[in-house]
Amino acid sequence: MPSTMIAAVVEKLGQPLVLRELPIPAPRRGEILVKTEACGVCHTDLHAAKGDWPVKPHAPFVPGHEGIGRVIAVGEGVTTVKEGDRVGVPWLYSACGHCEFCRKGWETQCDSAEYGGYTRNGGFAEYILAAADYVARIPDRIDPLQAAPIVCAGITTYKGVKETEARPGEWIAISGIGGLGHLAVQYAKAMGLHVAAIDVDDGKLEHAKKLGADLVFNAKNGDPAAALKKEIGGGAHGVLITAPSIPAFHQGIAMTRKLGTCVLVGLPPGDFPTPLFDVVLNRITIRGSLVGTRQDMVEALSFADEGSVKADIELAPLSDINSVLDRLEHGKVPSRVVLDLRNGVQAAGA
Amino acid sequence: MPSTMIAAVVEKLGQPLVLRELPIPAPRRGEILVKTEACGVCHTDLHAAKGDWPVKPHAPFVPGHEGIGRVIAVGEGVTTVKEGDRVGVPWLYSACGHCEFCRKGWETQCDSAEYGGYTRNGGFAEYILAAADYVARIPDRIDPLQAAPIVCAGITTYKGVKETEARPGEWIAISGIGGLGHLAVQYAKAMGLHVAAIDVDDGKLEHAKKLGADLVFNAKNGDPAAALKKEIGGGAHGVLITAPSIPAFHQGIAMTRKLGTCVLVGLPPGDFPTPLFDVVLNRITIRGSLVGTRQDMVEALSFADEGSVKADIELAPLSDINSVLDRLEHGKVPSRVVLDLRNGVQAAGA
Amino acid sequence: MPSTMIAAVVEKLGQPLVLRELPIPAPRRGEILVKTEACGVCHTDLHAAKGDWPVKPHAPFVPGHEGIGRVIAVGEGVTTVKEGDRVGVPWLYSACGHCEFCRKGWETQCDSAEYGGYTRNGGFAEYILAAADYVARIPDRIDPLQAAPIVCAGITTYKGVKETEARPGEWIAISGIGGLGHLAVQYAKAMGLHVAAIDVDDGKLEHAKKLGADLVFNAKNGDPAAALKKEIGGGAHGVLITAPSIPAFHQGIAMTRKLGTCVLVGLPPGDFPTPLFDVVLNRITIRGSLVGTRQDMVEALSFADEGSVKADIELAPLSDINSVLDRLEHGKVPSRVVLDLRNGVQAAGA
Amino acid sequence: MPSTMIAAVVEKLGQPLVLRELPIPAPRRGEILVKTEACGVCHTDLHAAKGDWPVKPHAPFVPGHEGIGRVIAVGEGVTTVKEGDRVGVPWLYSACGHCEFCRKGWETQCDSAEYGGYTRNGGFAEYILAAADYVARIPDRIDPLQAAPIVCAGITTYKGVKETEARPGEWIAISGIGGLGHLAVQYAKAMGLHVAAIDVDDGKLEHAKKLGADLVFNAKNGDPAAALKKEIGGGAHGVLITAPSIPAFHQGIAMTRKLGTCVLVGLPPGDFPTPLFDVVLNRITIRGSLVGTRQDMVEALSFADEGSVKADIELAPLSDINSVLDRLEHGKVPSRVVLDLRNGVQAAGA
Repeated sequence: MPSTMIAAVVEKLGQPLVLRELPIPAPRRGEILVKTEACGVCHTDLHAAKGDWPVKPHAPFVPGHEGIGRVIAVGEGVTTVKEGDRVGVPWLYSACGHCEFCRKGWETQCDSAEYGGYTRNGGFAEYILAAADYVARIPDRIDPLQAAPIVCAGITTYKGVKETEARPGEWIAISGIGGLGHLAVQYAKAMGLHVAAIDVDDGKLEHAKKLGADLVFNAKNGDPAAALKKEIGGGAHGVLITAPSIPAFHQGIAMTRKLGTCVLVGLPPGDFPTPLFDVVLNRITIRGSLVGTRQDMVEALSFADEGSVKADIELAPLSDINSVLDRLEHGKVPSRVVLDLRNGVQAAGA
Repeated sequence: MPSTMIAAVVEKLGQPLVLRELPIPAPRRGEILVKTEACGVCHTDLHAAKGDWPVKPHAPFVPGHEGIGRVIAVGEGVTTVKEGDRVGVPWLYSACGHCEFCRKGWETQCDSAEYGGYTRNGGFAEYILAAADYVARIPDRIDPLQAAPIVCAGITTYKGVKETEARPGEWIAISGIGGLGHLAVQYAKAMGLHVAAIDVDDGKLEHAKKLGADLVFNAKNGDPAAALKKEIGGGAHGVLITAPSIPAFHQGIAMTRKLGTCVLVGLPPGDFPTPLFDVVLNRITIRGSLVGTRQDMVEALSFADEGSVKADIELAPLSDINSVLDRLEHGKVPSRVVLDLRNGVQAAGA
Repeated sequence: MPSTMIAAVVEKLGQPLVLRELPIPAPRRGEILVKTEACGVCHTDLHAAKGDWPVKPHAPFVPGHEGIGRVIAVGEGVTTVKEGDRVGVPWLYSACGHCEFCRKGWETQCDSAEYGGYTRNGGFAEYILAAADYVARIPDRIDPLQAAPIVCAGITTYKGVKETEARPGEWIAISGIGGLGHLAVQYAKAMGLHVAAIDVDDGKLEHAKKLGADLVFNAKNGDPAAALKKEIGGGAHGVLITAPSIPAFHQGIAMTRKLGTCVLVGLPPGDFPTPLFDVVLNRITIRGSLVGTRQDMVEALSFADEGSVKADIELAPLSDINSVLDRLEHGKVPSRVVLDLRNGVQAAGA
Repeated sequence: MPSTMIAAVVEKLGQPLVLRELPIPAPRRGEILVKTEACGVCHTDLHAAKGDWPVKPHAPFVPGHEGIGRVIAVGEGVTTVKEGDRVGVPWLYSACGHCEFCRKGWETQCDSAEYGGYTRNGGFAEYILAAADYVARIPDRIDPLQAAPIVCAGITTYKGVKETEARPGEWIAISGIGGLGHLAVQYAKAMGLHVAAIDVDDGKLEHAKKLGADLVFNAKNGDPAAALKKEIGGGAHGVLITAPSIPAFHQGIAMTRKLGTCVLVGLPPGDFPTPLFDVVLNRITIRGSLVGTRQDMVEALSFADEGSVKADIELAPLSDINSVLDRLEHGKVPSRVVLDLRNGVQAAGA
């Protein structure tokens, strides 16, 4: 086994990533070392690399929280995974295990949580150090490239759909049919929901239909809330907004049925104007949702394992990471880019 | 029995009410006639009389949806109440009984609902016509004057507390300790919650303490959210905002614990800026709540019946209705004004 | 319109039914008259005709609570259905609309409920008198013969599946794949559940597989609980027992996963031995479930309307009712017999 | 610090315990050493010492799972408690932290859990080795002798009350007012419930009244279910059976209101006859409940910390353990015996 690896490193927030040769870390107690096969590229990686959020990561660091690979070494005391297992190293890198939120099975809210590719080095590298108790077990039937988006985009949308509390046979409206939304449509259908898909791109709506959406609405062609209510009466029991913009948020509230729940994923800056009069009058619930817990992960992967959910992916080598991030920033990634590390990485210029 | 009665009538939206002599209505099938003993005066009556809301009432009409009195006549087919029973005629005057929302026990969302003192004549009168299946049964131990605020302010705050989903032993923050908030404090304590009261008036906070509030915060003395979190760590599991203003709403979100729920009662116009980043990051739920169902009414009255909840009231004759509404509009009613009709009304100028 | 109709009447409990000519009832206030197209025959009809249950029906009466037909006359005050509408007249004939259980949307528990074909004349007749607010609206795409079993067997199994609280992606074990169970399998699949079917008849298990069951177990071939746990580990999140016998109940508890819920439908006499040690140790929930509410009816019919659920039916004329009941009593009805009244009835001996 | 301690040891199942001198264990990674101040004696200790349950403990071992004391040494990697902290070492000694049940916050169901005083040495000793992440933090205001019963009897009854899902303002019936029941009454009152207490001992019922029970029924004086329903109509929303016997179980089901939940704590052997007809007809839920999770522990202790719940205790020295167990076996312990180890133990015969 080599002693060094190639990783894409943020050396300074806001600067392009640089491929560097780093020492391969050795797993300490409770840790494992994973040889990366694939890692998806998420908007969060872009925010991390640019330092967009209030709590910024400390450079230098390696982004990536959709890393998939085989365990090649385990630290002391590790009993949950063994060498050779395929795992995913997700956004929720680890949590304390005993605080109020961990005790309740909501470790995503743990104040001592570490985050993959943010507070800990992530998957844009040939090897990833991970916390054994917090990695995702990747079922055998899922291709590692396919698994990558499930461990972040997949779990995020699956949890978002759950958090709407819409029950089988009811309607969910999914706003935004991109990297998150196209997975949300599939999860919702597998969960027995009726799906209305909303976007401003007819191509994406066509895709939503193929994935099982019962109704599609192009928000460019007029108010989607009015159109939805005309079709199904009263609005959707659940609404999932995958990319909160002010218009999407306003439409989302307007699409929500009385007693219904409008869930937002994504972390938009700034204040969003909320029509409280309508929220009160119609007893609407608005809820934020962020990734998902370890239990959500098992469930989200299980749907993928059975073939009910399949991500649209586009492959790229690690060396393309800056152009991928650039395309992502400019809205030019129609689905999910997955870095293919199955054959390792060649250093830049090699 | 006389054939006419005195009622305070809105003859034109935005004009003072006028005491008029009206025929006493006869109960038709399913209806009852109630001889009024008391009727509370609510902010909603003010909005009704002025026509403040998008769907306006049709003048002439009689406001008042906290009317309490004895049944003196019953229409055909009425089996649920009988002559002599004491009842309350609430905001939810009636509902269809078979739509999606009625079927679910959420008749407050019925599209065919009628509203007391808004779409149907209300309690600012010596007699009230009511729908037998939708009146509140007033338990014997509650004084009719005391009962009046319970059937609107009481049920609204009780339901609001329930909708926070805070469980016994957890914390609720109640923002605004006026006509609604002072009842909310009592309901929350009776429900086994820890209560933090927030207001800008030290007198009201003193009162909250006497009613059982465990902590009080004057929002004039600095950020109440920071102060609350300093005391109890992490914020309140539930937050109830009784008078949504933009600062109260912002503080309310900030006081909400991770995984917690912030409930709003009241119908504020306009858009409220909402920090979605925090809502998502902390998995916060925002929910609107409006009055309560018939089941909520039974429960809310039961707490009052046992003496766990007691409204602060101030008595006034019906003839004072315009000055009461004027004081209400200018924030000069510290608690709840209840019109005392136990001895009937003397016509204006009589 | 004729003034009399043919009905199958229980003249004395425990005696064969007799086809009689009865006056066609006129709908009073809130009632409607339905011209019968079809009526399913349920085990409950057998119990009713024999007087098996503690509270017995009063002979003479007309059984049948899966009656489907067109409204041909409406009484005063009926606004929810109109002449020509197709409706179902279910077991829950009517309820009071204002008691604790009605207020909560659990009208199936109303103490003043009336029951179709039990306390009120039912669907084994050319015409049925019904309570307008409690009939089921039959969606247009469902054939009336198909609709008959849905309004009792369908709603009962749909509600039973809901009451297990198993969520999409989890496992439900369905014990008994007869008239109820074959519908339960379809509902469970449409609700996103994984289904294990248990029976003692390989033919029924083959059928379950065709209807989507993921796993099947013949309880004659050894302990189905052990076999199930071997396949999926830990047992099923929900268990639905469609025909409670002591062995089925014991197996059902043993199949229930820790934290899971075992639901029973059907009304077995006598006491069932329950292993409380296991129930406590594994935090198991046991729950009874009876038919379903009006809201459950809308939902159950909606799945059928979309084609997700289809009953196996066998047609018979009303004049065959005694032989049908006899076959039912001796376990010789593999699916559901539906009385075909589309062309009326010929009187016995006619 | 000494190197040995006195402990009460089960050397052979079914034999009296023997006071022995044992080496004081050293805390390994993740473990802590606790100097015992108090340890309650629970029926489970009796079952353990006698080997009553299917999965037997391996002798020799030290029983006791209500041990309270100060941390006097911490192993490597312990961050959650520090020397000097007061902790409780409960029945749930440790769990795996990553299985399905641990992930869901139901670590009490973990298949790899260890049990204090059963699979691991417990609190009938001067020192206890404990798993740092699973001990209870004892709030400062609770006396250590008082804390002992809370960490098992307290959490068990608190969780049991929660599991009835009765809400503030509703009724709970508590059957059996002994060591568990007298705590259940206090928890239920603190949680805003109305309490009916049932026992066969007037003295215990008098005590229940003093602790806040609203109604009491002596089951010797006739059917308590009928008496309860006469008083409150319809039965209790929740029922908690603290000592399942066949009559208590039958009465418990009969006391349960329609839609209500009957919860059992305790681990009775054998099968209990259950009237499924009534369970189905009235949509009753029966649920087993075992101790509680770490989160339940925090909550249960918090009520005690505030003074809302106080255990009846009787002190005894460790050397009396056999006579205490003997009295417990013969029903001669009216409340809870707590072994007082504040001044250590004198070896038998010393």
